[in-house]
Amino acid sequence: MTHSPDHPPERAHPAAPPVRRPGGRTSRIRTQVIDAVRAELGEHGYEGLTMEGVAARAGVHRATVYRRWQDVGGLIADVLDAAGEDDWQPPDTGSLRGDLTALNDEIQESLTVQPSIAEALMAASFRSEQAAHAQQQLWEDRYARCEALVERAVERGELPPHTDARGLLIASTAPLYHQLVLLRTAPDPQLPGYAAATAALAAAAGAFTRIAPDPES
Amino acid sequence: MTHSPDHPPERAHPAAPPVRRPGGRTSRIRTQVIDAVRAELGEHGYEGLTMEGVAARAGVHRATVYRRWQDVGGLIADVLDAAGEDDWQPPDTGSLRGDLTALNDEIQESLTVQPSIAEALMAASFRSEQAAHAQQQLWEDRYARCEALVERAVERGELPPHTDARGLLIASTAPLYHQLVLLRTAPDPQLPGYAAATAALAAAAGAFTRIAPDPES
Repeated sequence: MTHSPDHPPERAHPAAPPVRRPGGRTSRIRTQVIDAVRAELGEHGYEGLTMEGVAARAGVHRATVYRRWQDVGGLIADVLDAAGEDDWQPPDTGSLRGDLTALNDEIQESLTVQPSIAEALMAASFRSEQAAHAQQQLWEDRYARCEALVERAVERGELPPHTDARGLLIASTAPLYHQLVLLRTAPDPQLPGYAAATAALAAAAGAFTRIAPDPES
Repeated sequence: MTHSPDHPPERAHPAAPPVRRPGGRTSRIRTQVIDAVRAELGEHGYEGLTMEGVAARAGVHRATVYRRWQDVGGLIADVLDAAGEDDWQPPDTGSLRGDLTALNDEIQESLTVQPSIAEALMAASFRSEQAAHAQQQLWEDRYARCEALVERAVERGELPPHTDARGLLIASTAPLYHQLVLLRTAPDPQLPGYAAATAALAAAAGAFTRIAPDPES
């Protein structure tokens, strides 16, 4: 989830004009501001996030921050956009269950680390339409990258062909978000493996096979 | 999710002193205020919820609302407490898959109806510790009531004995919350049945059997 300042965003966000000089001052300012937003979120949460606080911490003129990001929703959206510009790849452990467990371990870690920037960003996306849109884009990008994980399992013969990757990935990861973000239960160290094993079992039995809607077939 | 004013809350909430005269003026005021909070949430969302707006709509003195509920978080918490005082029971269709599908249909309906009070309450629980606690209590209560659904399936021989009801229920319902609340994808009319069938399949294969941690057994 590190920011790659050398990769200009592929889709310009309404609040973030295209980076004109990659690697130049515009890009440097964006990196400083995004780092500052993450640090402020970690310290004060979304409630304590202000344009002034971000500008001061980033060492950037307030006028620049207002002009380029407009408001706190714009800042959050750009942090989420930046997170999607990294070169993250899904785990490759050699087995479907191992891959899904490793993925769930990453998710559980990101949601339970204190402070959790991931959770602060999710909370923020309930407050700003722009942030919600960026959060959605980031998630869709992650699910798309994870399709490779499912394809490898099909190639290894662990899964039936035509397995719906998105359905399987949501089934495997959703219980973690549900428990940690919505139910707010204490982290269960067994849950990542448990949820992964359950989804892998259902998938192997054909639960996510698009071409054969009857799970018995 | 209807409010039952005749059932005094079993656990008194810090912000809501015990109802002194069930059916009396105290209880009547609570009903009026809770109805007003739900109506205000439906019209203006959490962002537009104010103590003044609730008092005016409920026809109750502002001082009374402040004294009894303290702040907006206290109001939300009491709405959630009241929701848990109903006599809701899980669906009983005669099959595990049917029950889980009917449960998911209820959840999908509550999250996609416009305005969705359920979603507004969830958003509010990201803003107030007190609301978050009440949301958690309500969910735990719902999962506890749903244990009957799983017990019936075990009795019918659809599930192995010692199936972990909570794990199965979370696996069945989490994809709906994930898609509708977190990913904010458009409602998929097939998702309730699809998620229910997946969880039922995994459960029948022993994925939630506590006594036999190896899902192959």
